[in-house]
Amino acid sequence: MVKENSALVILSGGQDSTTCLFLAKKKFTNIEAITFDYGQRHRRELDCAKKLAELTGIKHKLVTIESLSQLTDNAMMSDKEIKLNEANGLPTTFVPGRNLIFVTFAAAYAYERQIPNLILGVSQVDYSGYPDCRRETIESLQQTISLGMEFPFKIHTPLVDKNKYQTVMLAQEVGALDYMQFTHTCYKGQFPPCGECPACQLRAKGFAQASLADPLLN
Amino acid sequence: MVKENSALVILSGGQDSTTCLFLAKKKFTNIEAITFDYGQRHRRELDCAKKLAELTGIKHKLVTIESLSQLTDNAMMSDKEIKLNEANGLPTTFVPGRNLIFVTFAAAYAYERQIPNLILGVSQVDYSGYPDCRRETIESLQQTISLGMEFPFKIHTPLVDKNKYQTVMLAQEVGALDYMQFTHTCYKGQFPPCGECPACQLRAKGFAQASLADPLLN
Repeated sequence: MVKENSALVILSGGQDSTTCLFLAKKKFTNIEAITFDYGQRHRRELDCAKKLAELTGIKHKLVTIESLSQLTDNAMMSDKEIKLNEANGLPTTFVPGRNLIFVTFAAAYAYERQIPNLILGVSQVDYSGYPDCRRETIESLQQTISLGMEFPFKIHTPLVDKNKYQTVMLAQEVGALDYMQFTHTCYKGQFPPCGECPACQLRAKGFAQASLADPLLN
Repeated sequence: MVKENSALVILSGGQDSTTCLFLAKKKFTNIEAITFDYGQRHRRELDCAKKLAELTGIKHKLVTIESLSQLTDNAMMSDKEIKLNEANGLPTTFVPGRNLIFVTFAAAYAYERQIPNLILGVSQVDYSGYPDCRRETIESLQQTISLGMEFPFKIHTPLVDKNKYQTVMLAQEVGALDYMQFTHTCYKGQFPPCGECPACQLRAKGFAQASLADPLLN
């Protein structure tokens, strides 16, 4: 029996998925969260995800994916320099297939629990250009997982057309702002954040435009 | 630079993917193979895949995916009874998302190696009813991985409309028949094969209809 009013949030421990978690709490009656340890160099975000789930009383599943590091080579999972890769026009932090794999694994877990709604905090505005963050990709992925498991999945991407300023304002609106102190964004895994990597800069831009202080920095 | 004439075969070590391997050798100039250890109870097929790659001189990548066993519960990865699951109308051997995950991981590997052609031995005839073996699913998946990695993937499924008889005849035609002694099919992981599980029965049916002896049994 499909549990229509339940949702699984793909929670990285970052700003965007945390905002999604609070948004989902308003929209669905039963919320769970799933986090992936794929060997990211910013290990701190895993502790953040765990802490956020505890604080919000959400059932939380941590899944280890060792396979990505056996297949790809990138700056998200190693000490490689973070810069533009001229061969494909993307930052060296691009992990090919990352969101496809996260969502498919989340869907396999949700299938067993009869949860049709998957919440993913991607944005195609103020982003790093990753093709697996775009609406068109996610719509195709929704069709693929629904066909592949014969289950009526719906992937919700509430931030897909929002810039970082709008996401910060939304976080404030849904009561997530105070919890931003427990999130992690820095690609380099530093705390306090490095302030210089593309992820830190995007985050800072959003808070600056919203004229709000980032609780992580205070 | 996309290597147009190269292909990556998703090689399980079974009858169908082995036939695909030989077919691919005729069609592409550069062939590689990838095999997934996802905790299947029929561990023997991993040794078969390795042996087949050695015998045919194909570069072979074995990838371990531990995550599926953290997410799902099924008779393919445990001692659960193999029977019909009345809740979803599928055999208890259904692993939700299995082919989606295999192909997406294979695509991430192929992306790094600039290989656009992925070869998958699924069939939607004489099969177990798994929805991730159907043409419609695979076409959607091809679109998803191409969009998600911004790379012109083509998933080839040469057996998708073939029954087991036709697959045996094709194996003979492409010179794969003798190599069937090195394949594994039995869901229970037995050698000699149990002869009773759905996979053994489908295999036996194909050889019987082709009036050929199965080299694995002789």
